[in-house]
Amino acid sequence: MSEAWLEELRWNADALIAVIVQDHCSAEVLMLAWMNREALSRTVELGEAVYWSRSRQRLWHKGEQSGHIQKVREIRTDCDRDTLLLRVEQIGGIACHTGRRSCFSTRHEQARWNTVEPVLRDPQDIYSS
Amino acid sequence: MSEAWLEELRWNADALIAVIVQDHCSAEVLMLAWMNREALSRTVELGEAVYWSRSRQRLWHKGEQSGHIQKVREIRTDCDRDTLLLRVEQIGGIACHTGRRSCFSTRHEQARWNTVEPVLRDPQDIYSS
Repeated sequence: MSEAWLEELRWNADALIAVIVQDHCSAEVLMLAWMNREALSRTVELGEAVYWSRSRQRLWHKGEQSGHIQKVREIRTDCDRDTLLLRVEQIGGIACHTGRRSCFSTRHEQARWNTVEPVLRDPQDIYSS
Repeated sequence: MSEAWLEELRWNADALIAVIVQDHCSAEVLMLAWMNREALSRTVELGEAVYWSRSRQRLWHKGEQSGHIQKVREIRTDCDRDTLLLRVEQIGGIACHTGRRSCFSTRHEQARWNTVEPVLRDPQDIYSS
């Protein structure tokens, strides 16, 4: 947890860093999440994405309930070292809790937000099984 | 500025929203930036990315100094409506102030951060011309 490479990142006032998650194959942006030092450390150890859930205030091993785990292929940081880019293999092909492939399914069109991507699997089905 | 679609987004405590910027053609993730309502409103009006610079505390028309403007092809939001995804045409092919194509040029490799992408143009050349 006190590893040098962790301290070379710029953690925000809440000791978190923003994480852009991208499909390593299609390059589609799947979601934006947050990590604390422990989440990033566990992600590296496990080879699977572990985030800090700001709403639940706990570590969140992505896919722990849905099975939609993210296998980590690459971790990058940016020139300011205050953001991460995670390239992942999205197991099950669904990153979003709405049952869509990506969380970015809503497009700005003529001063409105229109959801343009299909639900691939019913969330009730995802989270009850 | 009081347009309904702007208020359908979830602005953070600083009245900002995170913006993932992606090359619309290559799908490469170029940078993470921030917008306030005015920046987003101007981005839509202008068709070019305008951010809120947290370091300079002012609106920042990306490329105003470097010429590396971002023409907006699509704006999306996510399922929580607290993040934007901007798909852009990156004029000059350089998004990063270091003269690299993307800000995400540094890779995690065996507990170290290694910068793996080339400088395409000397920053001194970019910002003095």
